Amino acid sequence: MTTDARLRVRYAETDRMGVVYHSNFIVWFEVGRVEMLRAMGHRYRDIEREFDCHFAVADVRCRYKTPAYYDDEIIVRTHLKNVRGSLLHFTYEIIRAVDNTLLAEGESTHIVVNAKFEKTSLPESLQKAFEAAVTQH
Amino acid sequence: MTTDARLRVRYAETDRMGVVYHSNFIVWFEVGRVEMLRAMGHRYRDIEREFDCHFAVADVRCRYKTPAYYDDEIIVRTHLKNVRGSLLHFTYEIIRAVDNTLLAEGESTHIVVNAKFEKTSLPESLQKAFEAAVTQH
Amino acid sequence: MTTDARLRVRYAETDRMGVVYHSNFIVWFEVGRVEMLRAMGHRYRDIEREFDCHFAVADVRCRYKTPAYYDDEIIVRTHLKNVRGSLLHFTYEIIRAVDNTLLAEGESTHIVVNAKFEKTSLPESLQKAFEAAVTQH
Amino acid sequence: MTTDARLRVRYAETDRMGVVYHSNFIVWFEVGRVEMLRAMGHRYRDIEREFDCHFAVADVRCRYKTPAYYDDEIIVRTHLKNVRGSLLHFTYEIIRAVDNTLLAEGESTHIVVNAKFEKTSLPESLQKAFEAAVTQH
Repeated sequence: MTTDARLRVRYAETDRMGVVYHSNFIVWFEVGRVEMLRAMGHRYRDIEREFDCHFAVADVRCRYKTPAYYDDEIIVRTHLKNVRGSLLHFTYEIIRAVDNTLLAEGESTHIVVNAKFEKTSLPESLQKAFEAAVTQH
Repeated sequence: MTTDARLRVRYAETDRMGVVYHSNFIVWFEVGRVEMLRAMGHRYRDIEREFDCHFAVADVRCRYKTPAYYDDEIIVRTHLKNVRGSLLHFTYEIIRAVDNTLLAEGESTHIVVNAKFEKTSLPESLQKAFEAAVTQH
Repeated sequence: MTTDARLRVRYAETDRMGVVYHSNFIVWFEVGRVEMLRAMGHRYRDIEREFDCHFAVADVRCRYKTPAYYDDEIIVRTHLKNVRGSLLHFTYEIIRAVDNTLLAEGESTHIVVNAKFEKTSLPESLQKAFEAAVTQH
Repeated sequence: MTTDARLRVRYAETDRMGVVYHSNFIVWFEVGRVEMLRAMGHRYRDIEREFDCHFAVADVRCRYKTPAYYDDEIIVRTHLKNVRGSLLHFTYEIIRAVDNTLLAEGESTHIVVNAKFEKTSLPESLQKAFEAAVTQH
């Protein structure tokens, strides 16, 4: 499954080189994940609250191609690549909306944990929905 | 009571005008408060944990005089101005260390609340320490 | 003139009390200002680039009423209150969209400066547009 | 060459799970790089200003082992791993100071660019200093 979220670059996200400071792309990945869940009919806030399931980040990577600028409209294209037990694997493309330029690519691996950061499992309904989303194009 | 905390401007805190983005001064106020508590022998983390007391921000203000730049060493001069029941009032000066230039002035008012954001009281020992700190120069 | 911008609270904007960290409201004010300019037919990015006019923050204040939570949809209601020479004065209401609860109120004063932070003037067309917006309801 | 920078976790850096939000580790990497340069006798601010050399991030990765908490003292252990032409490669360990627990490991690759983001070279003196630092333990 692949979904697009849109956001606009804030002044606060730029740095003195005149471009978006690189760690903000990692925040945008999170926006992408959450909007993918919403597109699947789930709200991450409720997953946390109802099931005590949290997607702790185990690994994150971003490769930067070309800068993002203030007030650019950005597409965060998120792809659920793999679900295996308590592990979730997402990939991302950060795209400048006006001309579809690929600004960055990334990926993240998450472990499903409870509020004490102990490994746990997704509830079966969510597990199935996620597995279905992996194969879906 | 007045205490000085020191920090160095991070690249992430600058914006595309080449100066520190203004909301970061509000974050620095928090650094100043916490270091004042530490100078008083208290750790805010422990105050939260042991007494379920949290200093919720009710009001914050900052007046900007001159910009802060990347890699500047900054002094956050924090002054505990008033303590009245569950209300705490701090004032701040943001100073460029190299030449003592005043970059900004601010103030904040806090309400002591529990984890549910209900108004509560400081434990008596802390209340007394804070009241003593107000009159102390 | 009063305009509404909408945003959704990001996980990165929350803190360990489970609510939005207070300095993020100041970032949201900026989102509100920029979207008001866009509603007036102006893009702040272009104002910076074409006229070398930047709205440096001289004073900002925020009064917090009730917390904002993760994934809340937020309305940033921005009002251009006054324009006098090189001074701009905005007020803000931060509103939880789902039930129209007022979460915070704020205001900011800006000085029009050039890239060297020297006081300058708005181009006449913008000055007139801003003055018209002040009286407009 | 390996250097240690120290910082303290700010409240603003935590999230509603009660731990440091993961993108802040990427900001800490930058603090580590800059303090390594300072230990080598160079100030990144001056490198930018005098030589128009900027270390644009091409790739960043972080693997998270265990959470960082509010008010933890953190060591950012930075290692300059490789310098080859306009490419710099750093690795990082994020360590909790109180008990030397490794919280995260990371790496970043940088391209030396000018203010227009065009690939450029380090001045010869810096290039030599960096190459010497790579072999130095």
